[in-house]
Amino acid sequence: MKAEIIAVGTELLLGQIVNTNARYLSRELAAIGIDVYFQTVVGDNLNRLSDAIRIAQGRADVILFSGGIGPTQDDLTKDAIAAVLNRKLHIDRMAMDKIESFFRDRNVDMTENNRRQAIVIEGGTPLANETGLAAGNAISDNGKHYVVMPGPPKELIPMFEQEVKPWLFQHVLTEEMPIYSKMLKFAGIGESALEDRLLDLIDTQTDPTIAPYASEGEVTVRVSTKAPSESEAMLKLDAMEVQIRERLPEHLYANEDVPIEYTIVTMMSDMGLTLSAAESCTGGLVMQSLTSVPGSASMLKGGIVCYSNEIKEKLLHVPHSYLEGEDAPGAVSPEVAKVLAEQIRMIGDADFGLSVTGVAGPGYSERKPPGLVFIALAQRGKETEIHELRINGNRETVRIRSAKAILYRLWRKLVEMD
Amino acid sequence: MKAEIIAVGTELLLGQIVNTNARYLSRELAAIGIDVYFQTVVGDNLNRLSDAIRIAQGRADVILFSGGIGPTQDDLTKDAIAAVLNRKLHIDRMAMDKIESFFRDRNVDMTENNRRQAIVIEGGTPLANETGLAAGNAISDNGKHYVVMPGPPKELIPMFEQEVKPWLFQHVLTEEMPIYSKMLKFAGIGESALEDRLLDLIDTQTDPTIAPYASEGEVTVRVSTKAPSESEAMLKLDAMEVQIRERLPEHLYANEDVPIEYTIVTMMSDMGLTLSAAESCTGGLVMQSLTSVPGSASMLKGGIVCYSNEIKEKLLHVPHSYLEGEDAPGAVSPEVAKVLAEQIRMIGDADFGLSVTGVAGPGYSERKPPGLVFIALAQRGKETEIHELRINGNRETVRIRSAKAILYRLWRKLVEMD
Repeated sequence: MKAEIIAVGTELLLGQIVNTNARYLSRELAAIGIDVYFQTVVGDNLNRLSDAIRIAQGRADVILFSGGIGPTQDDLTKDAIAAVLNRKLHIDRMAMDKIESFFRDRNVDMTENNRRQAIVIEGGTPLANETGLAAGNAISDNGKHYVVMPGPPKELIPMFEQEVKPWLFQHVLTEEMPIYSKMLKFAGIGESALEDRLLDLIDTQTDPTIAPYASEGEVTVRVSTKAPSESEAMLKLDAMEVQIRERLPEHLYANEDVPIEYTIVTMMSDMGLTLSAAESCTGGLVMQSLTSVPGSASMLKGGIVCYSNEIKEKLLHVPHSYLEGEDAPGAVSPEVAKVLAEQIRMIGDADFGLSVTGVAGPGYSERKPPGLVFIALAQRGKETEIHELRINGNRETVRIRSAKAILYRLWRKLVEMD
Repeated sequence: MKAEIIAVGTELLLGQIVNTNARYLSRELAAIGIDVYFQTVVGDNLNRLSDAIRIAQGRADVILFSGGIGPTQDDLTKDAIAAVLNRKLHIDRMAMDKIESFFRDRNVDMTENNRRQAIVIEGGTPLANETGLAAGNAISDNGKHYVVMPGPPKELIPMFEQEVKPWLFQHVLTEEMPIYSKMLKFAGIGESALEDRLLDLIDTQTDPTIAPYASEGEVTVRVSTKAPSESEAMLKLDAMEVQIRERLPEHLYANEDVPIEYTIVTMMSDMGLTLSAAESCTGGLVMQSLTSVPGSASMLKGGIVCYSNEIKEKLLHVPHSYLEGEDAPGAVSPEVAKVLAEQIRMIGDADFGLSVTGVAGPGYSERKPPGLVFIALAQRGKETEIHELRINGNRETVRIRSAKAILYRLWRKLVEMD
C-alpha cells in the first residue's frame, strides 16, 4: 500500500512554517503498515494543485492532504480534488450546523465565506474536526483513496487519530489486521549503542517489529505488531518489552512516549520524595524541564542557579578556598559539585539534592575544556554520588546533555529505592 | 524564476526527521527572488528519484536537492541526476584530497565507499563542504539548473550561504541585482498588532519589501532590497529601518536575527550591569534562556527557583502572612512578586532583580485561573515595577510568554538607561 502526502499552503513554500504534518503523518502511516513514497508541498493554486494530484494518482494508492480547507478563496484543496475526480461539491449539513452554532454562541455574525468550511466532495465521507471548524473529507474513487485534513497540527492530529485511522482500516486496510504499537523510552544511552544491544532482535524479529529512533537526548523504540484485537497485540508487545528490558534494564525508563522528567515527577510524587537543585552551567535547564511537567509542585522544592562564584559561596556555602587560589580545585570540580548538591539538599530540606557545574563553552574556563562537566546527587543519609562528563558539542549540546545526564542518574536512584 | 526543492531520504518518509531544510531553503530563496513552487520528498531509490527529477524538470527552472550524497550505496542523488541528464560521474580531486587527509589526520583507515563523497557530475561545479566530507555540486543543463547539497542542516546551511548563493547569482540570477536583507526583531507585541502598525508601509512599499513573521514569542520583520552594491542597499535598508523604528520604537530590540536575551546580555555586559532572578512558575526558564547566550556569566549573578512556598519564605523572605491565611494575597499576587524581585536583587547584590509568579496550569491554583501571572522588576535605588499578565494558552505557552514578558520589561529599562 503506497501513499503520498500532499501539504497545501503557500506559507510552506515561503519557508514561514515547517512541514511537521508530513513528519507526523509519515510516522503514523508507517506504524499502520502504509508506506509513504512521496511527500509533496504545493501552494494555494488550483492548477498546480490539480497537477500535483494527477502526479500522485500515478504513483500512490492513498493520497493524504493537509491544509487548504479553511474559509478563504485561497483554500482550494477540496475544489481541486473534485475537479480532478470530476465530482460535485456540496455543503455537509452537520459540519454547517457546527459552524453556525459556533458563531451563534459567540454572538458574532458569520461571514458567508465560512460556508466553504462545511463543503465536502460528492460521495465522500465528511470527517469531523473536533478542534476546529473546517470539515475533513475521505473518498475512494477508481481504486484510489483520498483523505483531506486541515493544516493546523492541533486540528490535523485529532482528526487523524479519531476519524482518518478508522476510515483507513475500513476502506483501505480491509485485508489487514490493525497495527498496535508500544513506545519504549531510553535514557543514559546513545542510539547506536542501543541498536547494538538489540541488533539480533531487530534483525531476526519480524513480528513484533522493532524500530529505534533518537530524539533530543533520548532514544525511542517503537514495537509494533498486527493482531485481530488489542488484547492479543498486547500479549505480543508485552513479551517483546520484557525481552528488550532484560537487555537494557538500566536504561528503559518508560513504556509510553514521555520525557524522563515526566517519569521522575510521577515517581517522586508517588513515593512522596522531594528534590532541590543547584545549577551552574545548565542555568536552570534541569528545573525548567521538571517544572514543565504538571504536578511537579509536589516534588520540586526549588533551587538555586549559582552562575557566579559569589552566589556559590554566599548561598551554597562553597568554601572560598575551593573557588580561588593557586591550588583551588575551581568551580568546575568534583569537590564543588559535591558541596553544591549537599548544600542545596539541606537548604531545600529535600530528600535529594542535585548539582551541575561545568564548562558550557565556547572556549575554556578555569583552563578547563568546554564539555567538561561534573554532576552530583546527594541523598538524605546516603553518600553523595559524583560523575564526570566529557561532552562533545556546542554550548547548547553541552547544556542539554548535562541536564539529561543528571536526570538519568536521579531516575536510577529512584528505581533502586522503589 | 521557478524552483523546486527535492529532499532525498527514507528517514523523512518514515517520519523520523522533520524536513527543516525545505523551510530554510524556501525562505532563503524567497529572499533572493527565486519562487519555490514545489517541495518534494523522495526516498533513497534510484527509479523514484529519477522520476521526481523528470517531473521537476517539467515545472521548475532551478532544482535544489538536499541529501543522498553520503558514502553509502543508499546515497544516490548524484547518480540519479547524472542518469537523467545522461552525463558521467567522476571523482573531484580537491574533494578527494580533503576526505583522504581527514582519515589520515585521525589515523583511521578510509573505507572504499568514502570515495563516493568526492563524486561530481561531469561538467558541473563542485561545491565545498566546510563542515562535512560530501562534496556538493551545481550544474546547468539545457536551460535548467541543478544544485546538490548534503542533508545535515549543519552542512547544508554553510554550503548554501558560501557556495550556492554566489553560484546562483553567477549562473541563474545573472540579470538580477543581488538582494540584501536586514532582520528587525520585535518583542512585547504580537504579529497582527505589529502588522497593523506597519500596514501602510507593507501595502505601499515595493522597495524595500517588508515581510513580517512570528517565531517563538517574538516577531521578525525582514526588509529586503535589490541593489548593485551592498552600500547602496544599506542606504535603502537603513532608511526603511528608521521609518519602522519610528512607528515601533518601544518594541524594536535588534536589527539582526537574535533573541531578546542576546540583546539583554550584550547591553548589560557593555553597561557593566548585573541581574539576579527569582522564578516561580517559569521554574528557571528566564535564567536558562539568558545563560544560553555565551558571555552571560558577566551579567547574571544567578538566582532562585522558588517553586515551593517554603523556599519563598526561607530564602526570599516572603512574609508568611502573604502566603497563608484567609486574607493572604497568596503566592500569585503583586505583593509577592514585589518581595521576590526586591529580595533576589539584594541577595545577588545585583543592579536588577526580576521575578515571575503565576498559575501555569492546567487548572486553578489558590482559586486563581491558569494564565494569571505577575512579573516584577526591582532596580537599585528605584521603585519596583509590577505587571499583571493574563495569558491564553497551555502550560508551555503561559511559561514561555511569562519569561518573554519579563525579558521585554528588562530590555525597556535598559534602553531608558542607555
